Amino acid sequence: MKLTYSGKTKDVYRLEDGHVLLKFKDDVTGEDGVFDPGANTVGLTIDGAGKSGLRMTKYFFEKLEEQNVPTHYIDADLDEVTMTVKPATVFGKGLEVICRYRAVGSFLRRFGAYAEEGQVLDAFVEVTLKDDERQDPPISEDALAQLHILTHEEYATLKELTQQISEVVRSEMAEKGLELYDIKLEFGRDPERNIMLIDEISGGNMRVYQGDTYIAPMELEKILFS
Amino acid sequence: MKLTYSGKTKDVYRLEDGHVLLKFKDDVTGEDGVFDPGANTVGLTIDGAGKSGLRMTKYFFEKLEEQNVPTHYIDADLDEVTMTVKPATVFGKGLEVICRYRAVGSFLRRFGAYAEEGQVLDAFVEVTLKDDERQDPPISEDALAQLHILTHEEYATLKELTQQISEVVRSEMAEKGLELYDIKLEFGRDPERNIMLIDEISGGNMRVYQGDTYIAPMELEKILFS
Repeated sequence: MKLTYSGKTKDVYRLEDGHVLLKFKDDVTGEDGVFDPGANTVGLTIDGAGKSGLRMTKYFFEKLEEQNVPTHYIDADLDEVTMTVKPATVFGKGLEVICRYRAVGSFLRRFGAYAEEGQVLDAFVEVTLKDDERQDPPISEDALAQLHILTHEEYATLKELTQQISEVVRSEMAEKGLELYDIKLEFGRDPERNIMLIDEISGGNMRVYQGDTYIAPMELEKILFS
Repeated sequence: MKLTYSGKTKDVYRLEDGHVLLKFKDDVTGEDGVFDPGANTVGLTIDGAGKSGLRMTKYFFEKLEEQNVPTHYIDADLDEVTMTVKPATVFGKGLEVICRYRAVGSFLRRFGAYAEEGQVLDAFVEVTLKDDERQDPPISEDALAQLHILTHEEYATLKELTQQISEVVRSEMAEKGLELYDIKLEFGRDPERNIMLIDEISGGNMRVYQGDTYIAPMELEKILFS
């Protein structure tokens, strides 16, 4: 197998059968040693973070499979901390799709003149470009179409899938007495150009609270599987 | 008459008959003494800038009136450098609606990974919040609806009016051998809650080029009326 990409939190290998192997790392995003799911730099390394993220990802991707949501997931090996997935082509140079249930983070920084901190949002969806140099700018449906990144039809699919997937995560959390504030998803196209969920679903890609207390990724995994 | 608001480039007075009087000032937006239509600070004062802006505004608002585009315009007095308009309520705390024919300015700063400088855009429309503290953040149709600033129906109206009005300006410029790169419009509701164009249409709200040369607002007015 051949290393094709070394990302912030995962290494990507191409397998001989055409599948792709993702090796989850113990690096998590953040700044100055503090975890921040919205950051685009690696902030710190936590022993076991990779395995914890993979365990949640495996759990949610298998749940989504049961609901016939298209994903890149094939299987996962918790001991090796790897996940086998279908090859995917990302949209443009990569997009992040965010679903928000509470006004926090960058939503509040931009729209604080119109929203209280923590205000309830109605599964609000927005897209950002993966572009470290330009601080992952938000991009509108019309701009995505203008720049030939997504058609309007693809945008509608992406938004619908995002709300459907986020609701699966939100309701699982709610059963454990936890509240999902927001979650960041990634999508790509399979070789037949169908849109599917890619990357991971883990504590590192969402903000979850228990009452007023933020739950860090590895603690989240423990509560979820307790 | 009573001063109700002193803006960056205009003073606003309430008239006894219920109309509103706008007094155009010689202050223009920019930074460090350099004019920039995208800036939200007053950068410099230019003798005659107010009158020049009013002359263009009067010209375009009267042209739009002929085409039955709803605007706040009633009449203008070039000697007094004032314009009488209908009272308007802005959306939220004020929005700016931008129509882009070329990828420059903040569009390029955000989406430069996908667009060449000066690339042709298809009358691309986007909305920003008027919020100096938060650097006038762009806001999507869904976020405008989520925050109860505009309904989806109102957004569609705003976008359509923006493209219609911008095309009037673009084609006038083209007749003089000038090219409109982008233009910033403001809208509000009249007392019957109908959407109408407000504020001004002047060189200070648009980027216009003659070949590769940027044409500053007062020069633009001279060329347009030559």
